Amino acid sequence: MKKSRLEAFSDGVVAILITIMVLELKIPSGVTFDALLPLLPSFLTYVLSFVFLGIYWNNHHHLLHAADQVNGGILWANLHLLFWLSLIPFVTGWMGENHFASLPTALYGTVLLLAAVAYKLLSNAILRAQGANSLLAAALGRDIKGTISPILYVVAIPMAFLEHWVSYGIYVLVALMWLIPDRRIEANLKERHK
Amino acid sequence: MKKSRLEAFSDGVVAILITIMVLELKIPSGVTFDALLPLLPSFLTYVLSFVFLGIYWNNHHHLLHAADQVNGGILWANLHLLFWLSLIPFVTGWMGENHFASLPTALYGTVLLLAAVAYKLLSNAILRAQGANSLLAAALGRDIKGTISPILYVVAIPMAFLEHWVSYGIYVLVALMWLIPDRRIEANLKERHK
Amino acid sequence: MKKSRLEAFSDGVVAILITIMVLELKIPSGVTFDALLPLLPSFLTYVLSFVFLGIYWNNHHHLLHAADQVNGGILWANLHLLFWLSLIPFVTGWMGENHFASLPTALYGTVLLLAAVAYKLLSNAILRAQGANSLLAAALGRDIKGTISPILYVVAIPMAFLEHWVSYGIYVLVALMWLIPDRRIEANLKERHK
Amino acid sequence: MKKSRLEAFSDGVVAILITIMVLELKIPSGVTFDALLPLLPSFLTYVLSFVFLGIYWNNHHHLLHAADQVNGGILWANLHLLFWLSLIPFVTGWMGENHFASLPTALYGTVLLLAAVAYKLLSNAILRAQGANSLLAAALGRDIKGTISPILYVVAIPMAFLEHWVSYGIYVLVALMWLIPDRRIEANLKERHK
Repeated sequence: MKKSRLEAFSDGVVAILITIMVLELKIPSGVTFDALLPLLPSFLTYVLSFVFLGIYWNNHHHLLHAADQVNGGILWANLHLLFWLSLIPFVTGWMGENHFASLPTALYGTVLLLAAVAYKLLSNAILRAQGANSLLAAALGRDIKGTISPILYVVAIPMAFLEHWVSYGIYVLVALMWLIPDRRIEANLKERHK
Repeated sequence: MKKSRLEAFSDGVVAILITIMVLELKIPSGVTFDALLPLLPSFLTYVLSFVFLGIYWNNHHHLLHAADQVNGGILWANLHLLFWLSLIPFVTGWMGENHFASLPTALYGTVLLLAAVAYKLLSNAILRAQGANSLLAAALGRDIKGTISPILYVVAIPMAFLEHWVSYGIYVLVALMWLIPDRRIEANLKERHK
Repeated sequence: MKKSRLEAFSDGVVAILITIMVLELKIPSGVTFDALLPLLPSFLTYVLSFVFLGIYWNNHHHLLHAADQVNGGILWANLHLLFWLSLIPFVTGWMGENHFASLPTALYGTVLLLAAVAYKLLSNAILRAQGANSLLAAALGRDIKGTISPILYVVAIPMAFLEHWVSYGIYVLVALMWLIPDRRIEANLKERHK
Repeated sequence: MKKSRLEAFSDGVVAILITIMVLELKIPSGVTFDALLPLLPSFLTYVLSFVFLGIYWNNHHHLLHAADQVNGGILWANLHLLFWLSLIPFVTGWMGENHFASLPTALYGTVLLLAAVAYKLLSNAILRAQGANSLLAAALGRDIKGTISPILYVVAIPMAFLEHWVSYGIYVLVALMWLIPDRRIEANLKERHK
């Protein structure tokens, strides 16, 4: 019961975030291709953020599915993750409207980094509640993607002040890397249900 | 469990889209009929988009109801559909504010076309997971409406540059065609539960 | 299953409507009581619309609870109701910002009237599906409030052009009348579960 | 059934409130640190309001979990709580944009006070339905935090006109005090399930 309400609340927040971002796509005043073109950076950022939020929802889904119960620590670790995700529409709008200028691009990466850290903390809180020898612990095991992503963000953030397209490229790379769902947990759960 | 969370998330996104569109209906500055009248195109577009989102919710409901399980491919096919639907408030606002000007009207049709393609891909992903000989496959069978709609959009999009009212008329026609719910799946499911 | 998804979707839409209305409460530019005071009509309208949406959610809750199943007709009757409810933030904003001017006040009543008609249609669609001799039919029986409300709206709408405070008073009266939940259905359901 | 729908609706409203607040974080027009800096008060207020809404969601979760059933009185007590919570984005925006000016800071505290009163009323409505000798009554027992919070708000509100940073400090203090989840109910429920 408690877990389902946590899932429903998180789904609600992510569903709202993924849709209110479209409000940052300001309707152009003209009706020509020339009026539409300056929106391209905003649109590209929108797509990227949509994919990131989709990835978080997807992995959150797998992670919570593997949790047997929730406690106060997990509730707050989850809200902490939602906090950083809630800033995505803001940094998406700022980076898009300013055509990937240095500071907005660095801030975008910073929010992604802090969301990744928050996800890790949530994952650890669930692991602690399950016990170190649980199947989830075994399944998450080495968590290569979860280790590489923050490193990539830490590279991309200062890079935004040198060559911001590289930073943007790194964000796209991380997104592509995560587009593959966390099959470790899925495979493990299948084992468990046998 | 997994399926219900996918449904809940999709319902959340569609519920938000269908309601934030009203934020694009800008409150008129005056209090006379003359101040209200210029909103008529925005209102008509709002009604049309509301009906389209209602149709997608309705058919999505039937389609997922027929699915026995979800996998990673279905999750992403579903997010892909939600992505194109998420652009509906933007194109609704642009087309409505500009009184059905050519480019916004063409873009509106393009988003509808891409949403229709995404729905087809989702439907195929579910069919693949169910097996070609499943009852869903038999029920969807020829899928006449799903075949005609994209063709109509492909006609309507260039037509927007010649006679944009024809394009708008085609969109209304597609909506009316779909207002009849997908009784094939419903009838089939009834069979199955016997 | 189907019914629960209809309820969840409707809850989502009403939850969004009831909360995005606050976005129409424009943050004042000053920080004095004088800057806050012009917001009073907007605030009063906000309270009224919040109560109306609360009433609809509450009664919708009771009505759907009494329904045994949903069909295509019920789905669309429900979307039709949600459509009129979705216009409440718009008319709330227009009436509030213009301090209950005649036309916005009349339009506010018109949207309430059409929502009331849509609720009646939904209620009828559910009754048809249940059968005329069902307990719900017996419970709804005379439906005095459902009959009086539209009559009061029909009086209030033209009255807005003569004395708009009378119209506002009638809206408040209808809200107060409905604040008492539909105990008929509740009592009836209690009977049924015995 | 009824209870789950009340929970879902409340979760929906809180999820929307916690996310639309980000729309009040206006995207800066420049791309420099100097352009970002004036947003700091808005950001700090955003964090505070996010935490408050998280606390309300968390405690609401525990409170409803302990309720065996809902009635009309509980439904309206719940909507009353949601009403005051719905004003949080407005007062958050006003206080943040005006760098904690006196009146906005006092109004922020007033909304928090009224939300606290509404929570108390909801809690009482649930207790009445459960019976005075229920385990929930025993568990809530003295409710020290619920008694101290309103007192602190009553101190903070007039203080805003003397030294508004003291008021802000008190709000932070109340939030920190509540960050510890309501273990009384949790512990009590554990007892009950034995």
